[in-house]
Amino acid sequence: MHMVNERMLALGNEPSAIRELFAYGLTRKAEIGADKVFDFSLGNPSVPAPAAVRSAIADALGEPACALHGYTPAQGTPAVRQAVAHSIQRRFGCEASPDRIYMTAGAAAGLAIALSAVTHPGDEVLVVAPYFPEYKVFIESAGCTCVEVPARANDFQLDVPAIAAAVTPRTSALIIDSPNNPTGAVYGRAALEELAAALRQKEAELGTRIYLISDEPYREIVYGAEVPWVPAVYARTIVCYSYSKSLSLPGERIGWLYAADQMGAEESADVYAAICGAGRALGFVCAPALFQRVVERCVDEPSDVAAYAANRELLTKGLSELGYEYVEPQGAFYLWVRALEPDAEAFAERAKKHELLLVPSNSFGVEGWIRIGYCVDASVIENSMPAFKALAEEYVQ
Amino acid sequence: MHMVNERMLALGNEPSAIRELFAYGLTRKAEIGADKVFDFSLGNPSVPAPAAVRSAIADALGEPACALHGYTPAQGTPAVRQAVAHSIQRRFGCEASPDRIYMTAGAAAGLAIALSAVTHPGDEVLVVAPYFPEYKVFIESAGCTCVEVPARANDFQLDVPAIAAAVTPRTSALIIDSPNNPTGAVYGRAALEELAAALRQKEAELGTRIYLISDEPYREIVYGAEVPWVPAVYARTIVCYSYSKSLSLPGERIGWLYAADQMGAEESADVYAAICGAGRALGFVCAPALFQRVVERCVDEPSDVAAYAANRELLTKGLSELGYEYVEPQGAFYLWVRALEPDAEAFAERAKKHELLLVPSNSFGVEGWIRIGYCVDASVIENSMPAFKALAEEYVQ
Repeated sequence: MHMVNERMLALGNEPSAIRELFAYGLTRKAEIGADKVFDFSLGNPSVPAPAAVRSAIADALGEPACALHGYTPAQGTPAVRQAVAHSIQRRFGCEASPDRIYMTAGAAAGLAIALSAVTHPGDEVLVVAPYFPEYKVFIESAGCTCVEVPARANDFQLDVPAIAAAVTPRTSALIIDSPNNPTGAVYGRAALEELAAALRQKEAELGTRIYLISDEPYREIVYGAEVPWVPAVYARTIVCYSYSKSLSLPGERIGWLYAADQMGAEESADVYAAICGAGRALGFVCAPALFQRVVERCVDEPSDVAAYAANRELLTKGLSELGYEYVEPQGAFYLWVRALEPDAEAFAERAKKHELLLVPSNSFGVEGWIRIGYCVDASVIENSMPAFKALAEEYVQ
Repeated sequence: MHMVNERMLALGNEPSAIRELFAYGLTRKAEIGADKVFDFSLGNPSVPAPAAVRSAIADALGEPACALHGYTPAQGTPAVRQAVAHSIQRRFGCEASPDRIYMTAGAAAGLAIALSAVTHPGDEVLVVAPYFPEYKVFIESAGCTCVEVPARANDFQLDVPAIAAAVTPRTSALIIDSPNNPTGAVYGRAALEELAAALRQKEAELGTRIYLISDEPYREIVYGAEVPWVPAVYARTIVCYSYSKSLSLPGERIGWLYAADQMGAEESADVYAAICGAGRALGFVCAPALFQRVVERCVDEPSDVAAYAANRELLTKGLSELGYEYVEPQGAFYLWVRALEPDAEAFAERAKKHELLLVPSNSFGVEGWIRIGYCVDASVIENSMPAFKALAEEYVQ
């Protein structure tokens, strides 16, 4: 008897720990009141889309409906690809051809497409732990093995020697994201240059190609740190960008892939063609047409990080007063806090008794930490402090 | 040396014949004037989205931006799934649970997801030739083999004995689309009942499950024919619906999958969970959020088929006067015309000399026919008649 596909059934029946915690939070809020539950589980932006998005939608709706809502080329309209390429040129002083930009239905689509494009079944793809859990899902969908390389223990920066040591002849790609989810770490220029040198050396040693997939949904959410443009440092890069956080549009599914011109005309053309092929193979006909128009108009719209910066201040100040240890986040909107016992899941369960919804680090491939998403109303942080205090007191002997 | 993935490269570098013909048309129009080229290549709706879509967008924009553009549940908002389920109940007098509706980024996404959900690599999936060429791409992406079963030669209806004969122990699914692209055939109730009986018999014989994937982007584009609700005839059905044609929103990527309740609570729950898993594995986080709101509000909006009906009349009258042989279309917006020589590609090339852009049937897996997409301005049909006349005259001895 044929059954449904077991891998897909398991993926459908085992929603991520993050989603489960969020669902628990909704139930709990209904039971005891929304203001009594401190839900730090999700990465759903708490800052609304900027007014420019609303204007761009209104403006786009002036286009005749058949053209506006019609199929776009699979890679995106020429206008939006031009706008993105120009923005890259202006911001980073780097070559960027519109013919190497491929509009996607957000970063998840971009990652799935990029992985299918540059890997073969049986390959290995490196990730830096802790890492966004869906990376493993997308890597395995491409028929590859997810190989976890721990970040540096003290500051969660890249451990380049460990990455180099994990490279094998089957390694076809490495995924990084900076600013990092879940730690908030930003990889500086020196670190990226060290990584690039190590990857190039491994390529030369093994006679292989290693693609660096730079997942950048949090590029704009930074607190003073510079986020270097990766293709300027390592040529064999595919940038995976999303407007989910920068323009607060996560439900609209809009972003892009960029096959770096720096690879050279021939290789970047092949990578781009493989991206187009993978998009087609996975069922992505084109990125949503109306939001392609929005991006065309809002490509340089600044992200509103003031609320996240204020939340970060409020949260780190409060938790450090209570004696919690955490990594000072340079970007994104997550705080990575050491659990008060070695078992992060047990700690998160205990936190739940105080109505604190914290994601245990096991979800991200490491032990002993929890992630606090501070993309919430400031009042949630303020009101949660007595609960964090009571939780810490449980661990005082 | 690792290269990019060869299958993806080939898919990216070999755009469909339809897309290539369309691109040729754009170039040719620039050379000799848009009114001199008769482009019948695409299935891009020529009827604008109904006014109700514009109102629904305006109405949805009243929702706070964080909620409106935020992530929805992966399967879609509860409200839109409720609206779709109620619409099915009202229209077809059939059970339909919102918990079996999964919102997708259009029918292509739906097909890719459904195939990954109910097949295993190495399985066979049947298609009825002529068929939409991307079926083969999606089937092969799931690691399966596409097995073509010819439709009946005279009227392009289902050849049920041939379908039954093509079923093997590895057959896990059959894709049908009615109204059919490219022939315009609609499968009536008796034909579907014959098919259902044959599939059930094969399942019993082989001890397997055969899922019927009913691809229905053209359900609303009909000229009087009834389009039966497939789950009422065959329980093990997944309906794949899209608003691309019915609401003229192909670029926005919005539709749904329905794992038929008729399978029974347990099996439909498994199929639905596998669909959720496959959507996750392929990188579809949620269907575009704004257009989920539009569908919620426009689910029963009638499709405007008057222009297509008039075009069909104009085209069939004109071509029959010129002696062309075609299949009278009962639905969709394509006319399936016999080529005037056995080699459809040679015929289409000759048509190009008369500035007629017709898709040769080889693209759809059969010989000797061409597809005319009549989702165009009526003037294109009117003005093309002298070219069709001149083309026919080339074949008179």
